[in-house]
Order: sequence, then structure tokens, then C-alpha cells
Amino acid sequence: MSLTGVIPPVCTPMTPAYEVDTASLVRLVDHLIAGGVDALFVLGSSSEVAYLTDAQRRTVLQTVAGHVGGQVPVLAGVIDMTTPRVLEHARVAVAAGASGLVATAPFYTRTHPEEIRTHFRTIAARAGLPLYAYDLPVSVHTKLSADLVLELSREGVLAGLKDSSGDDGGLRAVVMGREAPFSVLTGSEVTVDSALWMGADGVVPGLGNVDPRGYAELFRCASRGDWEAARAEQERLVRLFEIVHVGGSRMGGSSSGLGAFKAALHLRGVIDCPVTALPQIPLNEDEVGRIGKLLAAAGLL
Amino acid sequence: MSLTGVIPPVCTPMTPAYEVDTASLVRLVDHLIAGGVDALFVLGSSSEVAYLTDAQRRTVLQTVAGHVGGQVPVLAGVIDMTTPRVLEHARVAVAAGASGLVATAPFYTRTHPEEIRTHFRTIAARAGLPLYAYDLPVSVHTKLSADLVLELSREGVLAGLKDSSGDDGGLRAVVMGREAPFSVLTGSEVTVDSALWMGADGVVPGLGNVDPRGYAELFRCASRGDWEAARAEQERLVRLFEIVHVGGSRMGGSSSGLGAFKAALHLRGVIDCPVTALPQIPLNEDEVGRIGKLLAAAGLL
Amino acid sequence: MSLTGVIPPVCTPMTPAYEVDTASLVRLVDHLIAGGVDALFVLGSSSEVAYLTDAQRRTVLQTVAGHVGGQVPVLAGVIDMTTPRVLEHARVAVAAGASGLVATAPFYTRTHPEEIRTHFRTIAARAGLPLYAYDLPVSVHTKLSADLVLELSREGVLAGLKDSSGDDGGLRAVVMGREAPFSVLTGSEVTVDSALWMGADGVVPGLGNVDPRGYAELFRCASRGDWEAARAEQERLVRLFEIVHVGGSRMGGSSSGLGAFKAALHLRGVIDCPVTALPQIPLNEDEVGRIGKLLAAAGLL
Amino acid sequence: MSLTGVIPPVCTPMTPAYEVDTASLVRLVDHLIAGGVDALFVLGSSSEVAYLTDAQRRTVLQTVAGHVGGQVPVLAGVIDMTTPRVLEHARVAVAAGASGLVATAPFYTRTHPEEIRTHFRTIAARAGLPLYAYDLPVSVHTKLSADLVLELSREGVLAGLKDSSGDDGGLRAVVMGREAPFSVLTGSEVTVDSALWMGADGVVPGLGNVDPRGYAELFRCASRGDWEAARAEQERLVRLFEIVHVGGSRMGGSSSGLGAFKAALHLRGVIDCPVTALPQIPLNEDEVGRIGKLLAAAGLL
Repeated sequence: MSLTGVIPPVCTPMTPAYEVDTASLVRLVDHLIAGGVDALFVLGSSSEVAYLTDAQRRTVLQTVAGHVGGQVPVLAGVIDMTTPRVLEHARVAVAAGASGLVATAPFYTRTHPEEIRTHFRTIAARAGLPLYAYDLPVSVHTKLSADLVLELSREGVLAGLKDSSGDDGGLRAVVMGREAPFSVLTGSEVTVDSALWMGADGVVPGLGNVDPRGYAELFRCASRGDWEAARAEQERLVRLFEIVHVGGSRMGGSSSGLGAFKAALHLRGVIDCPVTALPQIPLNEDEVGRIGKLLAAAGLL
Repeated sequence: MSLTGVIPPVCTPMTPAYEVDTASLVRLVDHLIAGGVDALFVLGSSSEVAYLTDAQRRTVLQTVAGHVGGQVPVLAGVIDMTTPRVLEHARVAVAAGASGLVATAPFYTRTHPEEIRTHFRTIAARAGLPLYAYDLPVSVHTKLSADLVLELSREGVLAGLKDSSGDDGGLRAVVMGREAPFSVLTGSEVTVDSALWMGADGVVPGLGNVDPRGYAELFRCASRGDWEAARAEQERLVRLFEIVHVGGSRMGGSSSGLGAFKAALHLRGVIDCPVTALPQIPLNEDEVGRIGKLLAAAGLL
Repeated sequence: MSLTGVIPPVCTPMTPAYEVDTASLVRLVDHLIAGGVDALFVLGSSSEVAYLTDAQRRTVLQTVAGHVGGQVPVLAGVIDMTTPRVLEHARVAVAAGASGLVATAPFYTRTHPEEIRTHFRTIAARAGLPLYAYDLPVSVHTKLSADLVLELSREGVLAGLKDSSGDDGGLRAVVMGREAPFSVLTGSEVTVDSALWMGADGVVPGLGNVDPRGYAELFRCASRGDWEAARAEQERLVRLFEIVHVGGSRMGGSSSGLGAFKAALHLRGVIDCPVTALPQIPLNEDEVGRIGKLLAAAGLL
Repeated sequence: MSLTGVIPPVCTPMTPAYEVDTASLVRLVDHLIAGGVDALFVLGSSSEVAYLTDAQRRTVLQTVAGHVGGQVPVLAGVIDMTTPRVLEHARVAVAAGASGLVATAPFYTRTHPEEIRTHFRTIAARAGLPLYAYDLPVSVHTKLSADLVLELSREGVLAGLKDSSGDDGGLRAVVMGREAPFSVLTGSEVTVDSALWMGADGVVPGLGNVDPRGYAELFRCASRGDWEAARAEQERLVRLFEIVHVGGSRMGGSSSGLGAFKAALHLRGVIDCPVTALPQIPLNEDEVGRIGKLLAAAGLL
């Protein structure tokens, strides 16, 4: 059974004291499921996984898995530097009832393709859950080659790929080279129609937190072959995606993007507080105002 | 009181089952102290910190701090992606009795200098121990600018810098711009004499695990102004440093470098087993043989 | 009048003595025009422009422009490090009768967006021909932002963009943000159907040297809205594109890719000699044999 | 006969119309020779070689070689993307009477070490002049490994290395591994004393345009073993080097650095006009004022 459809990386709402706001998190999950998503991905980059302590990660997992209660699959990010640390996160995710794991290649260390191979093989062998490779060169500073992904797919090590590399030629090489069942998911917010057109199975859009209905509609249109409608919906979402650039050059891309998603969720009344974890820079009032205008233009306010 | 001298990043010996080998670790600590080092740095990159689980990190800290019992300062690496996760490690290090903390800029996330500033300020404010910035662009993918380091030094946020960037012009800018007391430590194995010549206070050499006496001798020569002798000792150590290239292109630089240090420690009888953590690639018999020859040439076997 | 359709970057056939083989070049041009291409791009990366002396560049320009005689537009690459050097190439291109110029951002120098803006403005002001920006981060080590491209489009500085960045989200931002007439051309061989789907106007495929009919057919299918047929043709071309990987890791990507195009043109009888310029590494007999098999599988031998 | 001492990369003065100002160039050469330099390097990065047309490069070469008339060696940069283009520049340099050539690895193309080897071998075989490898990763985006440099040295292909990589560990590996005569020259302005201490033979400092006496004095002190005096002089020059940062983040590093050298030469009365080539951003009045203060602080105004 291969994963398909819209699988948003669930934001992690926080209290003003930077603790996980479980009440808001539950509301966000309801908002996503009501929006028609097919599965949830917790503890991904858009979830601020890099900023959450292990205890906070556990809280997120237990809150979401407990609340969802099997209605939809819940994938868990197990993001850390190397195999032994990823395995620790995997144990927690398995215990919390996750449906699958999402892991990157090793980072911080200086890595070789043969080591990346061992990394994924070891996680798959020990974790006992379907494993998805997360290709995110902007964070990991390594690109997973299509050849490596396909080899690990054929071996049964990987159940799928979340491709956030922006390299749609590489995504297509995996789509054309794979043998079913292997889920190819794009992590892009802005080329979803074309990724589905190439044969991708689904999408993991950070912006899906803000507008789950939009991505669900896009996916439905594509599934029934109404590509014109899919494109129109995609273009609306491209314009909405402008919110991630509002923070501009006075902050890093993580602050700007994650701050925008949370500000939008707050403006839409889904979460109580738009705060992002330290050391991110908060958006100011003017910037939040511009996000409000973009939401309104997209019909979301 | 500013930190000076030779402060090796202590390797983490493991059992064949990849557990921390505390008996070997204690012997390694004794070997280093007997070799004349001035302080110890546990949980740095050469300690395989990126590969150790939190429980293993705690074991290392407690073992070393307990065994050393205040004979020499023990710095603790608190290496993780962002501020909240670093603070967790800091709490453990404080509880274990560390003398100071060593932290990098955030990684995995897309970071801005203003966020790096907040990161170090927050750690310093909450940890209650002297904080050393660890500049390691090859892992962190950000270079700490001399201006940023000096600003944080003037504020009292940073007690020192471990510069593993290889950029000795940048190191010199910090040395010339600092106001005492601020420890500038080079992380290079091969330009220690010149870093000390420029005014650096000490060195954190991974190779110091293998030959602590060599670096202690180098530092003593420099301290008494016998630069010719310092250079001769440095050149001997440069030749010994060849061991890190023995693994060549069939593995990543971490496997090759850390594997070489452990193979050498095993050949010298200091640790029981040369195994490195997953997913690193082990050195083969031929490669270990070449390391043995380089040790012999350096007078260490 | 905006440029559309298939505009292959014309390979530069050479003699065994590394001189421009003008007879083969003329045959290649005929092969491309007979294949149904809409325009030609000489002196691009696939033309080995980086390896051609100024005299050779002039020979190529004069040979192609003279032979084509206005049948189709001929764009000329003016690839060099900075504005003054690019202007020299532009003068030659104008004199030879080029229809438009293709320029990258400055490279080798450490450049700022404001300098890139001045660069394109100066070229456009002095050259007197439509100017196309060439976004090729793998060579230039700068990515042209959609904002910068659109600003220069609105100013009338740029007539179009050749996007070889592989970032189809960025290409879409330009397509959606542009005001006509502004040609958006993808430089990708493997995501042409999706780029056209997003609204791109054409394609500049290196592989179009080998199979111009394939790309012309792909473009025609897309133009008449038969997207299924366009995708089928694209997927055939993706499989053919495997030829660029035959050289593997024993050579650089330029040697492998450009060598493959020339080997295929030689096998197909279009050019006399498959040699590539120094210091590229030639493909060996076995590798050429594998290219032959891929050509046969694509119905081209 | 191996090249040693201070070999400044000679700035290229320009008229307000961006033509080579040969009168100022001659005065600059006299200023450098009077300052005690040992040789001249024309058409390097600090000479704005990337911005000069071929005609301008020729003018510079002929002006300097003609004026110097053999008093000191004149090295010529032959900076271009690949072997055939470098060979063209080499022919001009030979004809103009250059004493040696300075070439980088190929850039713009995607290059392999084996291709870099062929590149240098071909240039050396055809040019008939001593060839110096120029290691400048910030521009070329490749680092020359010590192993490759030493292999080409042993073969007689390379006569020396200009190391502008900032990696003094790599420089030391070449110094310790070379077999005489092979000139190792640092391109750093700020670690000259330490490079000489390691055994480097000389220095190619852009800042040497502004203060040739300073570098000549530094080299003399080192040569006679007065390292304390060498360091004091170096530290004075480090403070002067602050001029290259005055342009800050509103321009690229080339604009800021080259603009500062020319502004200082203009303030010191050596050249008539401080203009830099397009598309560089000029320093403003305030920035030039700050350069003036730094010159005064260094005793140069």
C-alpha cells in the first residue's frame, strides 16, 4: 500500500514560553483533516523539528498520533545527524504509533554515498516501519542521487522519497525508474501540478498548513485528469506562497518561511500564538499585515 | 582565567557492539594527562559527538569528569542544530561538572547572523558556564565572522573561540581584535606553531589523541620562545597527520579521519577496539598497516 | 515578437586537430533545421563556448549565420567573465548578423546583485540586439532571482530568460510574473513538457542536437494541447538523455555530456569527428558503444 | 632559479572612460620598484584581469614589460576558462616578454582533477615559459590539492604555486612535500609572516600596491630571521588591510577590495583616477574618507 495525496508537514504551535501548545496542535490537525488531507507528516522541517527538544518531539508525536487515532497515516520525521541518533528517534516514533519514518542522509559529518547507503539500510532494518528518504540539500548539504534512491527502493529499504531538492529532473528520473510500490512525494509548494503530471504520488507542502483545501483540490483535479483546473489552483497557491518572502533579508529563510506559516495560521484562527522557536527572528507587525493581505487575496480571510 | 595550551578533543572508544567503552576511555584520559595536556574537550567532532546518542554523551561526560576529578578543566561539546536542543545538552554538561561549553552556530536550518547572535547569547545567559564558539564551516556550512566573534567577546557572551575553519587570516583578526581575557584556540593540527606565533592561546588537535606529548612539546617550545624547535615538532606532526588520508576516496572524511585516530590509539595499546560508529566505513587491514608505518616513522610504535 | 519553440544550443564539431570543422557544422545546422527547430543558439555551453578561442567563436558565428541566411533566428552566446569582455563578444556577434545575445551574470569575480543589474543594463544599452539572460548556476555560481529577472524585463533590458538552473519553481515565478513579450526558455532536457505546461515559451536542449525531431514533436504536441503525447515524447527523450551519464565519474560533467552529444552526432553520421576540446577527457570505445545502444533504443540508429 | 620575495599583483589604473591609463600604470610600476619589490605580477585578479578586454590586457603587458626592461621579472596572468583560451593569452604574454605565466584550473566548466592535470600539462608544454598554478577557490570554485600540485611539480610542469586559497595547512603540505626548485607564494595579505615561517618563498599581496615598502620590509625581516620585526610589520599591514572592508555589504567583494586599492593609490598620488571597471560599484565619498584615515593610521598619508 503506497502513500499518495496531500501529506502536510504539520507545524508545531507554541506557547509564548516556547512550549508545545497541544491544544492548538490538535486544532491544527482537525483543520488539516477537515481540509481533506490524506496523511500527516509530523516533525518535518516545517514542523521546526530542528528546534524541538526530544521531549517536545515526543509530545508532538503522542498528541498527534493519539488525536488522529488511525483516521489517516501519521509519518514521523526522525531528523538527526547520524544513524545512532536517528535510531533513537525511530524508537520513540514506533512507540507512539507512527505509520512510517522520514529520514535524511547524515549531516554535520562529511559523508560518502556508501555511508548514506549504510545509514538508510540500518534504519530500515531496525525500525520496523516503512522508511521514506528525505532529500533536502539546502539543509543536509548532500543531494540524494536518483540511482541511490532507486537502488534502495529495489532492495526494499525505502518505501518512498520526499523530494525537497527542487530538482524536478531528478524527481522524474525516480518516477520513471521506480518499480511499484514506491511513493514519490514532492516537497515543493509551487510545482505540484507538474510533479503529479510526471507521475509523482503526492505532495508534502508546508503551505498546506495554511490552505489544506487548496492542495486537496489541486490533487483531486489532477487525479481525475482535469489538469487545467489543477494548474489554476496551483497558480493561486503560488501567489499565496509569497507569504514566505515577507520576512526578506533581515532574517534567515527558516525564520521567514516558518514564521509566515504560523502567522497565517494565527490570522486564520487555527492556532493561539504565532511564536517560532529560538533563535528565529519574529515577523514584525508590518510583515504580518502583508501576510494578511496575501491571505485575503487568496480568499482565506 | 583564560584557557591556554593543549586541549585535545577526546576520542570516544567503543566496544564492538558500538557502546562507549568506558574502561578504554579512562585509559585514554590517563594517556592524555600523562602526555602533558592542559585540559580536555569531550564531545567534539573528533569525539564522534555527531554519532553518539544522548545517553552515550552522558556516559562520556560522567566518565571523564568523574575520572579527572578537577585535575584539568573539562570542556563539553554541546553540538546540536539549534538553541533549544543545545540548551538540553548544556544542562547535562553542567550537571556532570563540565568546566565550559563548546557550541557551533545553528546548522540544518537556514541561518542569519542575527540569529547566530541570539543563539550564543541565549546559551551563555542560561548555561552558567564559560561558552566557547566552535567555528567549523565544513560541518556547519556557516563561517563565523571575526566581527561577530569579537562583538560577542566584548559583550561577555563568549569566553573563547575554537577555530577549525582553516582560515588563519580570520584567526589573526580575532587575536588582534580581542580584549583579554578571550581564549583563541586553533582546531588545526598542522598550523599550530604559526597560530601560536600569531598570538593564539592554545590548540585543540584531534591528532593530540595519538600524540599528546608531541603537541605538549610544541606548545612548551613556543611558550619559551624556541620557535625553531616548535616548527620542527610541528613538521613531525604534519607527517604523522598523513594517517587521516589513508582511507582515501572510498569513504567520507569523517570515517577516514576518526578511523585513523582510533586505529592509531589501538595500535599504541591505549584503547581496546578501533571501531567507529555507524554509518562510518571501517579502515581495512592494509590501511591500518599503513597507519602503523606512519606511527613508526613518527617514533610512536 | 517573442522567441518560441525549440532552439538547440548548436554543438561545435571539431577536426582531430581541434579546429572548427565548418563542413560538419553546416551539416549539423541542416540536420537541425530539417528536424524542425525554430531557431539556433550558437556559442552556448553545449557549443563548448568555454573552450573556443575568440577566432573559433567568430568562425562558428560567421559559418552558421552565413549558412542560415535568415531562415531562422540565430542567437549568439556572449559568455565571458564581466561586462567589458562580454561587450567585445557582442560586437562580433552583431557584425556577424546574430538575432539576439545570450549572456550570463559575471563569474570568476565576487558579484553582488546590484552589479549583475548594471551588467545586463550595460550590455543591453550598448549591444543593440535583444538580450537573453542565461541562468546557469552550475557554471556561474550565482542564481538569478525571479525578482531581478522580472525587474530587468519590465525595464526592457531583457527580452527573455534561458533558465538552466533546474529550479522549475523559479521558472514558474518568472512565467507568472512577466509582462509580455518576454520569452521564458527552459534549458532542461528532461522537464520540457512540464515547463511548457507552466507557460514557458520554448526550450534550449543540448540533446536537441542529437534528436531535433523529438523536441520539435514534443513542442508541437504541447502547442496543440495534446499533453499526453507530449509527455510520452518527453519520456522517450529522458531515456535517451542517459547518454550523458555514460562517461561516469572518471571525467567531469562537461566531458561526459558534451562528449556524448558529439559521439551520438558522429554515430548518426551528422559530423565527421566526435572530438571535444582540451582539456576534456574523451569517451572510450566501450562508452561510445553504450551510447550507440541508447540511440538504437530511441529509434535513432 | 626560483622566484622569491614580494611580487605584487599590479593594479590596472584606468581613465574615467575605462581605458588603461598607461601613464598611471608606469608610475605605479615605478612606485612598486622603488618600494623594493622583487618581481611584478600583471593581469592577476587584483589587476582586474577578469574585467579587461584582450586589447587592454595586451596594453598592460606591453606597457609594463616595456617599461621594466628586465629590471625585475614580470609574471603574466593568463586567466581564462579553459586550455585553448589560456593558450591564446600565453602567446601574447610570450610575445610581450613575460618571464612566467600564472594560470588557474579551468572554471565555468564542470572539471575533474584529471582534466586539471591535462590543462596544466598542455599549457606548460606549449607556452615555453615557467608556469605557476594559481589556486583561488573563491573564483575558480575548485581547490588544487597538494598532491596534484606536487605531482605536477615533480613532472616539471609547474615552476611554482600562488596559493590564494587561505588554507595554510595546504600551503604547508606543498612546502614540505616539494623538491627544489619550486616557488611557493602566498596570496594572502595577512598571514605572510607565518607563510614565510613555514617555508614559503614569497608573497603576492594585492595590498602591496598600496604599501610595497611594508611587504618588502616584512620579507627582509623574515629573511634575516628577525621574526619579531616581521610580525610587527605584518600586524601593521593587517590593520591597513581593513580598507578592503570599507565598501561593506552594498557591493561585491571584488568592488570593495579592488576599489579600496585604487582609492588608496589615488589618495597617495600614484594614479590619476580611482575608477574600477564595469560592472563594479564605486566607493562613495564617505568610504574613500575612511580609507584615507586608515592610510594615515598606517603612516602612508
